[in-house]
Amino acid sequence: MIGRLNHVAIAVPDLGAAAAQYRDTLGAVVGPPQDEPDHGVTVIFITLPNTKIELLHPLGADSPIRGFLDKNPSGGIHHICYEVDDILAARDRLAAAGARVLGSGEPRTGAHGKPVLFLHPKDFTGTLIELEQA
Amino acid sequence: MIGRLNHVAIAVPDLGAAAAQYRDTLGAVVGPPQDEPDHGVTVIFITLPNTKIELLHPLGADSPIRGFLDKNPSGGIHHICYEVDDILAARDRLAAAGARVLGSGEPRTGAHGKPVLFLHPKDFTGTLIELEQA
Repeated sequence: MIGRLNHVAIAVPDLGAAAAQYRDTLGAVVGPPQDEPDHGVTVIFITLPNTKIELLHPLGADSPIRGFLDKNPSGGIHHICYEVDDILAARDRLAAAGARVLGSGEPRTGAHGKPVLFLHPKDFTGTLIELEQA
Repeated sequence: MIGRLNHVAIAVPDLGAAAAQYRDTLGAVVGPPQDEPDHGVTVIFITLPNTKIELLHPLGADSPIRGFLDKNPSGGIHHICYEVDDILAARDRLAAAGARVLGSGEPRTGAHGKPVLFLHPKDFTGTLIELEQA
């Protein structure tokens, strides 16, 4: 069911410093910051030959990653995103297996403009998993 | 400098349960368990179309991931591995930029039989980064 690893998301306390580190120290291709007010984050995508790294920084007072950074002030890996062909079929298969989908259970539009869902980390070995319809 | 994302490593408290979940619930291609006594882990590789997930479970009393699982009993994302063409050149470039390499600073042989190094998470936004010579 799951396909490509779309991205690994890393929450960072200083977006500019993290972007400079990936560009200058690690020599990667780093994009511009993009505000995603619907998701409460500013993101920067780093393009690797086979996938992407998504740097996440809180945007606004209610950012969903604020609590994560409070617990992990240096930052850390926040989630991984797998692609699926059909997000509603994936959701139904997961629900039938007893896995919890976060929120209402209806897909939202993610940072790439495609439907996404998040799965409960307690149901997946402590890992927050995003599914994105490819 | 960094190239492909070689793998994302997830430490899990129950290797069989995690493997079954990836195989049966998430529908991925899951390999057999491999003991890596030199690294104090048993690993299972999950093959995605563009990269791999490495499930890690402690092997032996001195496993380097034991402390991580004590702090994260449900499991969690442990590290990400980027490929580099020349690991000694990468190490020297990182050291010149002030980033700390874990251990002696000399590459070890990783789970794929290739030279690897780990970078200090405090120097990389809380993320443990493995570099593997491709």
